[in-house]
Amino acid sequence: MNYFEAFSEIAAELEEIEDRGQVAAYIPELSHVDPDKFGIHLTTVKNQQYFLGDSNTKFSIQSISKVLALTLARGLEENYLWDRVGVEPSGSPFNSLVQLEYEQGIPRNPLINAGALVVCDVLIGSLKNPQQEFIEFVRILAGDPDIGYCPRVAKSERLTGHKNAAMINLIKSYGNINHDIDLVLDFYCDLCSVEMSCKQLAQAFLFLATNGTNPLTGKEVVSVSRSKRINAIMQLCGFYDEAGEFAFKVGLPGKSGVGGGIIAIHPGKYSIAVWSPRLNAKGNSFKGMKFLELFTTRIGSSIF
Amino acid sequence: MNYFEAFSEIAAELEEIEDRGQVAAYIPELSHVDPDKFGIHLTTVKNQQYFLGDSNTKFSIQSISKVLALTLARGLEENYLWDRVGVEPSGSPFNSLVQLEYEQGIPRNPLINAGALVVCDVLIGSLKNPQQEFIEFVRILAGDPDIGYCPRVAKSERLTGHKNAAMINLIKSYGNINHDIDLVLDFYCDLCSVEMSCKQLAQAFLFLATNGTNPLTGKEVVSVSRSKRINAIMQLCGFYDEAGEFAFKVGLPGKSGVGGGIIAIHPGKYSIAVWSPRLNAKGNSFKGMKFLELFTTRIGSSIF
Amino acid sequence: MNYFEAFSEIAAELEEIEDRGQVAAYIPELSHVDPDKFGIHLTTVKNQQYFLGDSNTKFSIQSISKVLALTLARGLEENYLWDRVGVEPSGSPFNSLVQLEYEQGIPRNPLINAGALVVCDVLIGSLKNPQQEFIEFVRILAGDPDIGYCPRVAKSERLTGHKNAAMINLIKSYGNINHDIDLVLDFYCDLCSVEMSCKQLAQAFLFLATNGTNPLTGKEVVSVSRSKRINAIMQLCGFYDEAGEFAFKVGLPGKSGVGGGIIAIHPGKYSIAVWSPRLNAKGNSFKGMKFLELFTTRIGSSIF
Amino acid sequence: MNYFEAFSEIAAELEEIEDRGQVAAYIPELSHVDPDKFGIHLTTVKNQQYFLGDSNTKFSIQSISKVLALTLARGLEENYLWDRVGVEPSGSPFNSLVQLEYEQGIPRNPLINAGALVVCDVLIGSLKNPQQEFIEFVRILAGDPDIGYCPRVAKSERLTGHKNAAMINLIKSYGNINHDIDLVLDFYCDLCSVEMSCKQLAQAFLFLATNGTNPLTGKEVVSVSRSKRINAIMQLCGFYDEAGEFAFKVGLPGKSGVGGGIIAIHPGKYSIAVWSPRLNAKGNSFKGMKFLELFTTRIGSSIF
Repeated sequence: MNYFEAFSEIAAELEEIEDRGQVAAYIPELSHVDPDKFGIHLTTVKNQQYFLGDSNTKFSIQSISKVLALTLARGLEENYLWDRVGVEPSGSPFNSLVQLEYEQGIPRNPLINAGALVVCDVLIGSLKNPQQEFIEFVRILAGDPDIGYCPRVAKSERLTGHKNAAMINLIKSYGNINHDIDLVLDFYCDLCSVEMSCKQLAQAFLFLATNGTNPLTGKEVVSVSRSKRINAIMQLCGFYDEAGEFAFKVGLPGKSGVGGGIIAIHPGKYSIAVWSPRLNAKGNSFKGMKFLELFTTRIGSSIF
Repeated sequence: MNYFEAFSEIAAELEEIEDRGQVAAYIPELSHVDPDKFGIHLTTVKNQQYFLGDSNTKFSIQSISKVLALTLARGLEENYLWDRVGVEPSGSPFNSLVQLEYEQGIPRNPLINAGALVVCDVLIGSLKNPQQEFIEFVRILAGDPDIGYCPRVAKSERLTGHKNAAMINLIKSYGNINHDIDLVLDFYCDLCSVEMSCKQLAQAFLFLATNGTNPLTGKEVVSVSRSKRINAIMQLCGFYDEAGEFAFKVGLPGKSGVGGGIIAIHPGKYSIAVWSPRLNAKGNSFKGMKFLELFTTRIGSSIF
Repeated sequence: MNYFEAFSEIAAELEEIEDRGQVAAYIPELSHVDPDKFGIHLTTVKNQQYFLGDSNTKFSIQSISKVLALTLARGLEENYLWDRVGVEPSGSPFNSLVQLEYEQGIPRNPLINAGALVVCDVLIGSLKNPQQEFIEFVRILAGDPDIGYCPRVAKSERLTGHKNAAMINLIKSYGNINHDIDLVLDFYCDLCSVEMSCKQLAQAFLFLATNGTNPLTGKEVVSVSRSKRINAIMQLCGFYDEAGEFAFKVGLPGKSGVGGGIIAIHPGKYSIAVWSPRLNAKGNSFKGMKFLELFTTRIGSSIF
Repeated sequence: MNYFEAFSEIAAELEEIEDRGQVAAYIPELSHVDPDKFGIHLTTVKNQQYFLGDSNTKFSIQSISKVLALTLARGLEENYLWDRVGVEPSGSPFNSLVQLEYEQGIPRNPLINAGALVVCDVLIGSLKNPQQEFIEFVRILAGDPDIGYCPRVAKSERLTGHKNAAMINLIKSYGNINHDIDLVLDFYCDLCSVEMSCKQLAQAFLFLATNGTNPLTGKEVVSVSRSKRINAIMQLCGFYDEAGEFAFKVGLPGKSGVGGGIIAIHPGKYSIAVWSPRLNAKGNSFKGMKFLELFTTRIGSSIF
């Protein structure tokens, strides 16, 4: 079956299903988005493009940028990152802080907030101008200079992010944050505020479907082995408390953000970005999850 | 590269590495095994066989049988199993009991002890003679009638398994165990005591590499979708607190047991069983983990 | 002010307050009690008696018997009990099991279920006929042979007490239970089923107001130092998650039971038993707590 | 027996016991104190003074000031404080943060760090110049103007107190901190840095032995009922994870600080301050705890 046909049929099917999610409200700036937006963009490793709906509208990618930050950190340094952050799923959200205490300030993985804060600390230590160099890195991956931070969203998150501040202080109490806490939180909130469209996201993540090579430039973003490992981490840790559900129903490595975006990778085949702002109870896009489940079921293809 | 060549080279390489693991001692009967045993067996979907070392020696498969119990339960019933057990990774072992309390007696997944106890309870409710029907099911999968329980190991585990008894009582206090506790614990300990060789294991699990069809009989064991989902659960939950590590380094769905066995699946390609009794600190075969890491790296092939 | 006048005035005052509690339902046999029962009995160290309402009606003393079991154990043995159970408050109920895991099977104190199970195990190891000797001990303390177990309540609790079974199995997994689990659970459920009236309770606990001496027989029940320490443990651990509230509002050491009874001690002055079956959200008698708060406030006397 | 004789005899006895504690090192400034200092001062409700050793040397009272902050807050406002902080013991230290999460940002009691931070927030909201008014309050209680903050200690604690910063951010994420986090942390660290001698401490806390009246001025500090309740909170929550041990062995309400000081109250009789800088594993003065245990045992007097 043609991907585009699958898109159209599933989109029609989804219209019958009530979108029971809620737009993220804990970051005030995010709550202003139109909840009915819906976009899809799939890019194959042979550079074929399939898209539908609001696939060219930018949205706040939020936690999806944690994968890009990890990728940049992986490209910069050797294995010491894994002394400071684990690669295991995080279990229930209710024990995020106790887990940090139990594990002496070593976050379980780089895709939960605690781990991404440590990755930010690593990047600040390795880059001269972290904010600038990160966004350049994303633009090159996406092959599109028209990507940037949203200062309003970053500021909104910074002012209300007391739980992240609690987390980074706890990590620092164990000596696993080297730089000034405010500096790291600023960078972290900037990363989360990046705005991209489904099209840009699908393109930027395609290197994870091509064993680490940027298909636009032909250059290695990360090694084959690292590319596989980033996919593995996304598979196990990309959806908070719903990682198992996503593996179980969709069967692809991926990452979601509270802006309603989801990126998923079929190694060797394609990357796909979906966007729908209403979130389910676990904080993942309600319609996005549903779409991807129907998609991999319909085309009969997952990594499992 | 030929699989067998890879086996030989890696085996030689492993001889240089000190096996720092410890044979499982908490079940007295398991501590009598020869710690230097080492076997590998790979079966491809085209029925090619590659093996090395003690691949025909039987050992206690322990938790590996949880996947077979789940498969049997999935073949018997419809989706209500997922009301009684989740599909999410379990996080740190330190909170196994508090997690059960927090989640009202619903185990996080069917591959941790708590979840397997619920699967046993489901099977007891569905089968006339659970012990007999389960072992028949395994024999048919493996195409080998010479597979059975080890009563000494089952009894040893039953007498010392106070933590499992704590767990099942807690689950029952939430109403998620229907049958007599002793009956379920007996069945659970029997399941764990099954003895198989690497060869038998690789054959028995091959249906997960062939989208759910038993390649020996041509019959469907479980549907395509269920086969994929069992692989997804193994990927996320098959190695206790080391699931991420296994996904990260090996990149295949799999399951380990404290007898030192590991089964891993490359969907569409092969199943592979490894056995080495010494366990690392997380309770997984030290040498088995190392072997599989080197194997998928050397042949440059994983699902990611 | 005369104690009896205080009783009458407070009882009148309480009639104005809606009794918002619920009779304990988790032990089926307990749910049959008349929820409107209300009795008080105070015995001074000079053997003066003050009472009101249903003070001669027997009820299930439940956890109150944990103090008597501890007293008997303290009279029998030397300090090794404190190697097996702590003297610290237990914090939130939500972490009772994780706390046992964290503290390697050592219950926080002898007045929570986990600790009382260990005390029962100690008594079984020290007494020839624990059930018989315990009830004799209580009869002598109360100066009344008409006290016994209620087999129906004991059986009801035994059949539904899966959480206690979970707890004792977990403790045994750490080696802190020496005897057969069923034997200990039977004894524990018998202890909880003891039936006494407010009058009998006030008399039986008077030794804790007289530095350890049974005022009826003049014999030492426990030493002065042990008497003070049992009071200290009651003060800190006698009301589950409401120990602070009770110390704060009532200001006396005491112990409650889910049968709706409360015993409290003013060392050097009196013991007082109150009974009202409806329980507040924390499992303590709603009206009993209120009565004691008004009583110590009105007579202007607490240990603080 | 005369109190002073008891002091001398116990001091002699303590010389035979090895002081196995360690001076607090986590606040760098505190580690400079002479570890062999040892002082005692007891003031009776009739204004008799008994003292020994370094009873006139000032030291950092640290957490002892939490009781004074609570007293000042209790004098200022009505009951709404108890909507923002509980009166229950806190259980194991290992779950301090998870407990805050579980209980939605309501600290368990005002004598743990989390609770004292909320009390500081209350005082900042009620006082024009919190730092100045608090120290004046303490000076009046002690009848001695020569009491002040130690800016070096306050600064040292402020710079290294990442765990307190984690805590206050977490509380704020639940809306239970009204003022700027830095403002509250500054005030909190100032409070902890107050320096007083045993003599000054015993005098300042005497109002808790006299039902709330300042015996020097004859004025009410807090009402009778509040005085009793502050004692109750100290009894249940004054010694972190060793509250039970202190109640059990000493039998008086009290509060310790990591500077090695302990204050204890015998309502109706006396207040007593002890100082010895080496701390036991739970963070309480090793020798101070031992001294008080021997003291109340020898004079045969505790509240129980």
